[in-house]
Amino acid sequence: MKIAVLASSRDPRVGASPESVKKLLALGADVAIESGAGVAAGFSDAVYQEAGAETGSAKDVLNGADAVFVTAPPEKAQLKQFASGAKLIGLLNPWDEQESLSDYATAGIDAFAMELLPRITRAQSMDVLSSQANLAGYKAVVDAAAAYDRAFPMMMTAAGTVPPAKVFVMGAGVAGLQAIATAKRLGAVVSATDVRAAAKEQVESLGGSFIFAKEAMEEGEGTGGYAKELTPEQRQKQQELVAEHLKKMDIVITTALIPGRPAPKTLTREMVEAMKAGSVIVDLAAPRGGNVEGGEDAETYTLGPATVLAPKNILAGLPGEASNLYARNLFNFVTLLTDKEEKRLAVDWDDDIVKGVALTRDGQIIHEQFGGNALDD
Amino acid sequence: MKIAVLASSRDPRVGASPESVKKLLALGADVAIESGAGVAAGFSDAVYQEAGAETGSAKDVLNGADAVFVTAPPEKAQLKQFASGAKLIGLLNPWDEQESLSDYATAGIDAFAMELLPRITRAQSMDVLSSQANLAGYKAVVDAAAAYDRAFPMMMTAAGTVPPAKVFVMGAGVAGLQAIATAKRLGAVVSATDVRAAAKEQVESLGGSFIFAKEAMEEGEGTGGYAKELTPEQRQKQQELVAEHLKKMDIVITTALIPGRPAPKTLTREMVEAMKAGSVIVDLAAPRGGNVEGGEDAETYTLGPATVLAPKNILAGLPGEASNLYARNLFNFVTLLTDKEEKRLAVDWDDDIVKGVALTRDGQIIHEQFGGNALDD
Repeated sequence: MKIAVLASSRDPRVGASPESVKKLLALGADVAIESGAGVAAGFSDAVYQEAGAETGSAKDVLNGADAVFVTAPPEKAQLKQFASGAKLIGLLNPWDEQESLSDYATAGIDAFAMELLPRITRAQSMDVLSSQANLAGYKAVVDAAAAYDRAFPMMMTAAGTVPPAKVFVMGAGVAGLQAIATAKRLGAVVSATDVRAAAKEQVESLGGSFIFAKEAMEEGEGTGGYAKELTPEQRQKQQELVAEHLKKMDIVITTALIPGRPAPKTLTREMVEAMKAGSVIVDLAAPRGGNVEGGEDAETYTLGPATVLAPKNILAGLPGEASNLYARNLFNFVTLLTDKEEKRLAVDWDDDIVKGVALTRDGQIIHEQFGGNALDD
Repeated sequence: MKIAVLASSRDPRVGASPESVKKLLALGADVAIESGAGVAAGFSDAVYQEAGAETGSAKDVLNGADAVFVTAPPEKAQLKQFASGAKLIGLLNPWDEQESLSDYATAGIDAFAMELLPRITRAQSMDVLSSQANLAGYKAVVDAAAAYDRAFPMMMTAAGTVPPAKVFVMGAGVAGLQAIATAKRLGAVVSATDVRAAAKEQVESLGGSFIFAKEAMEEGEGTGGYAKELTPEQRQKQQELVAEHLKKMDIVITTALIPGRPAPKTLTREMVEAMKAGSVIVDLAAPRGGNVEGGEDAETYTLGPATVLAPKNILAGLPGEASNLYARNLFNFVTLLTDKEEKRLAVDWDDDIVKGVALTRDGQIIHEQFGGNALDD
């Protein structure tokens, strides 16, 4: 069993770490890593070789590879270098890059999009979105603190007291909760909102205050752990409350995502215009179009009184840590696909996790969300 | 009594805040602020006017001003716009810009360099270096976290645990102590070193571990609250211990300064070369030549395995907060110079604080450190 790890010109992260290489070897795999794939994450070719991997050109590492780890969809031109039946595993962005599904099918590649992983307990250790969102929530606060022209904590100095920054986190999912925790650590006064009633307790357990309109609390829980879209009335009530709250905020972090759809505009232009001069917004939904209405495509821009950070890939700024966790997730996933006795890949296509992420199989698109019909095994 | 506040092309901070304007007015002063001086700090002309200040051109605000607040030495060409006998108050960098002292004297300006403030209890509320160092220590950690490719806190995720970053602070003065506190807040494992024995207790009270060579602990306390320079033997012992410790560190923050002298090279090239790949160094002594040996003049550079941040003015990145505290410091200082009954400046040239900071008086250089002879009043 050979596992190839590709570099991506679109993403500085990498699908294997020296730690995961050792684990993959223990699983019975040979690991071949494209030269330079780990450089941005701090993993040199030498470090990979020391861990027991080979390194080489993309063509060489793909040659005969049973599984291929990526952090972003590979270039179309590269697909013909894949062995037939190779398993492509990683963040494949199937919603925005649907045309690539037929490319995978045509190339005879069985593609697994890790963003489609079902949110069930057994899949947690493979949950790339969750591990990366956790880091994104941390990084959002660190970047906000770096961009903010004041300090986060209250400081008592001989010249007087510096008041703490007020941080508001919109959306208390994995990223939002880590943002709350990190802002709290840094000494800010933290509040948060969400459409899920359950979030109240989580936010408060981290020391944040929960901002919500009663009207928006009903039936706010969607499927798969994501928030359901609000009705227009609910949205209005929630927006009024949030708009009032926003006027007092220094830092806002937005994290609202709906799978397969553009990010909802939870922060209207009007709400931003009414904010304080010098406030900083971090739009973690920027890769899916952004939560900020009237936002630009730029990664940093000014909107009314606020500076908006809208990173397309915030984890490009945390490549070492992000790669470490990503590599662990992929290792755990490929372990699920492996027959440990025979030390070879043996995909159970009826497994709920596999069903959740499998886009293509044997030259066909099989994922129901993308027009496929799941084949019987 | 008229107080002018100048903008500086060299420093985005400003010597008055809307809050300090109100206090200056209550002291009986008229306040005139150069147009745009507060923009970077988030204080528009309109906000100053609302607080009761006038705004106008540099020439207009200087006209008839009894005191002039600056954040950096004014341009030589501007000095002739000062009223004769005007008090120039601010960070005047007298060590690096000694030639400007005779310019002040020639222009009949009484100049007060706030970096020379004696470190006595009565002067604490005016201590610009201390208030700014406090913020610099905070900002150093925030910038290090933004530049570091991993996370500071330990994180428990479904994919495994992320270990905390190891932060080492070299020099436990005001900046160093705030850096320790901030890194600790962010969840890092923090250690620190200093040449003063008293620092051990302070470092430990903030949750840091103290790294020091016994041989370097003797007689390490200098005058004025600064560290004394080490003997060659002490330096060697301390460097050996620190060099060993540095090999395990992820983040290093250096803060060693000796007043009136170039910054000591506490981090040798050899020590840096032996550090871990991806480590980040923040050199807070960069404005005085830097603590990093072999460092470049750039504000960010790579040295061996480390990324070095060497900001010439780290508080340019925190202009709002820095200006707030700076403005309070200058207000407290000018209050000392003011006869509150008659609401006019009345300098007591025998006051220890005034003696400490006064560079020039009545056309003469009077500061003993800069070749002057203190005049009797």
